[in-house]
Amino acid sequence: MESVTVYDIAREANVSVATVSRVLNDTAPVRASTRQKIIAIIEKHKFQPNALARSLVNKKTGMIGMLIPDSTNMFFPEVFGGAEIAAQKLGYTLFLCNTFSNFDRESEYLSQLCERQVEGLIFMGGRVNARHCPDALVQEVVNIQSRIPIVLINGSLPGNPCYQVKTDEYAGTQLVVQHLINQGHRHIGFLGGNSETTTTLEKLRAFRATLALNDLHFHKKNVLFGGFSMQNGHHLMDRFMTMTNRPTAILCINDYTAIGAMKSAISHGVRIPEDLAIAGFDDTQLSSAMNPELTTVSQHSERLGIRAMEILSRLIEKEKVKKVTVLEPKLIIRQSTQS
Amino acid sequence: MESVTVYDIAREANVSVATVSRVLNDTAPVRASTRQKIIAIIEKHKFQPNALARSLVNKKTGMIGMLIPDSTNMFFPEVFGGAEIAAQKLGYTLFLCNTFSNFDRESEYLSQLCERQVEGLIFMGGRVNARHCPDALVQEVVNIQSRIPIVLINGSLPGNPCYQVKTDEYAGTQLVVQHLINQGHRHIGFLGGNSETTTTLEKLRAFRATLALNDLHFHKKNVLFGGFSMQNGHHLMDRFMTMTNRPTAILCINDYTAIGAMKSAISHGVRIPEDLAIAGFDDTQLSSAMNPELTTVSQHSERLGIRAMEILSRLIEKEKVKKVTVLEPKLIIRQSTQS
Repeated sequence: MESVTVYDIAREANVSVATVSRVLNDTAPVRASTRQKIIAIIEKHKFQPNALARSLVNKKTGMIGMLIPDSTNMFFPEVFGGAEIAAQKLGYTLFLCNTFSNFDRESEYLSQLCERQVEGLIFMGGRVNARHCPDALVQEVVNIQSRIPIVLINGSLPGNPCYQVKTDEYAGTQLVVQHLINQGHRHIGFLGGNSETTTTLEKLRAFRATLALNDLHFHKKNVLFGGFSMQNGHHLMDRFMTMTNRPTAILCINDYTAIGAMKSAISHGVRIPEDLAIAGFDDTQLSSAMNPELTTVSQHSERLGIRAMEILSRLIEKEKVKKVTVLEPKLIIRQSTQS
Repeated sequence: MESVTVYDIAREANVSVATVSRVLNDTAPVRASTRQKIIAIIEKHKFQPNALARSLVNKKTGMIGMLIPDSTNMFFPEVFGGAEIAAQKLGYTLFLCNTFSNFDRESEYLSQLCERQVEGLIFMGGRVNARHCPDALVQEVVNIQSRIPIVLINGSLPGNPCYQVKTDEYAGTQLVVQHLINQGHRHIGFLGGNSETTTTLEKLRAFRATLALNDLHFHKKNVLFGGFSMQNGHHLMDRFMTMTNRPTAILCINDYTAIGAMKSAISHGVRIPEDLAIAGFDDTQLSSAMNPELTTVSQHSERLGIRAMEILSRLIEKEKVKKVTVLEPKLIIRQSTQS
């Protein structure tokens, strides 16, 4: 585990670091004999032409950092997969960091990525979806952005300092709620998410507005917050199951809670969609794998990642880019909502 | 997007790079007035105490690279999640790279990670599961390993140059095949994977051996290779469905193919498990979400990641570690195989 630096190479070759750098980066001519001597030393030590040293000189690393909140909710790896495809095409290398939506962990990764001189950042989850993001955490991002570009996916920060790529979650929610109403449902529940997350509140606003548009009454007791996982969905549906006058259709905050909710309903002997319609959100590859297949809203997860990476690349090249890019969601109707 | 290096700071402060480094890293005393001058310049430029420069001096980056073949097969994000938990505890930052099992992309990431002076690597998929790994690709890993430790998860290379953490996939396969036989099945199929992947071949060997141990005949036509995705599983089960004397139980290469296979079987009007038993492998969180729930073999995905990261950390600290660490698999019996 020998670790040799440009300094060691320079010392051994009895030349300056700049000369080693010129050989490594081929940025200026070096006398052939000197060049050969340096290359021989590099090979002897199996020296890795050092991106650290190189980037100190070139100020280019080709490295992009991406923060996601939860690697085990398929939606995020799918977005990452899209960003990875674009990164590969554009000549960037993408490093993924998993934050568990923990603000401290986010700060740690942001700091680490910046110290390693990434050329740009893609940020999802955690603070960029927080209803009340503490000033210091906003400022941290703003400070970073004074040096390198940042693109948020499906998120924002107070004052909107950052470029954004997002799905119109409001429109997506309208589509699916209207679909449930068109199927004859008058008593619709809302399951999952939490009141501190902007995406949840956005979907809830659209949910209420669509009910109102159809002259349907909004019942607060039909909204059960409680997280984003399969387990959360299962527990919340267990609670719906105990209600005396329970909804005939339930919109879940995402596919994962919907899958948990379906399992709970089935275990209570409830038939889907005959007794209860269930819809998800995200159109992860799971939604079509379920039995019955899940009605959901496509966020074009892969395309979100591709667009974010493309925009980041243009920002790095100092091109002009629209501040907010919106992708239109698409309603995907499957078995879980239509008999 | 001002980009300032230690060199710029040193020049402006009229001190050596070493002095700036001493202030940044707090490795040796610096005169108070000099220290203040340097800090003022650092703050003026919003200079990010530079891990690049720092690591040139300290030769420590705290950075670990992890390569996985497919971020959209939940098994890998689950292993990554475990490694992330351990990394956080041990004070490392983990950067995930998605290779799509593409050898060139692997080489690109390996090179990038090494150039960025990661302190260690965790490697899954692609070449470390290749039946015939080209010499040059083996040599590339061996060369890297002469400088930094590498831990393979569920993989190996010819000559076994690397440390390994793995599930005993042979034993896991024995467990599930024996379970199917104990349920009364005499005619069992094998679905998915491919003949160029070591994990597939290992499972197939155990499959055949367990049949033989129970005096059951192995029929080559009951083995259908063809990939690792849900779609692959669906297509392969479609083919089983057209067989005249088809198996009464099918072992799938992983949970994803099993989920696709279940969908296909159900769409053919086949009841699971009454008409056909189906088992998966991996015990991803999907397996218990399915309807019916999927019998599978737990690889302790999270624990695989935790163990790999722990071992890597010990190797970085130059401690002695067993070359191969084996986790025992666990059979998880659910609805898809028992009436």
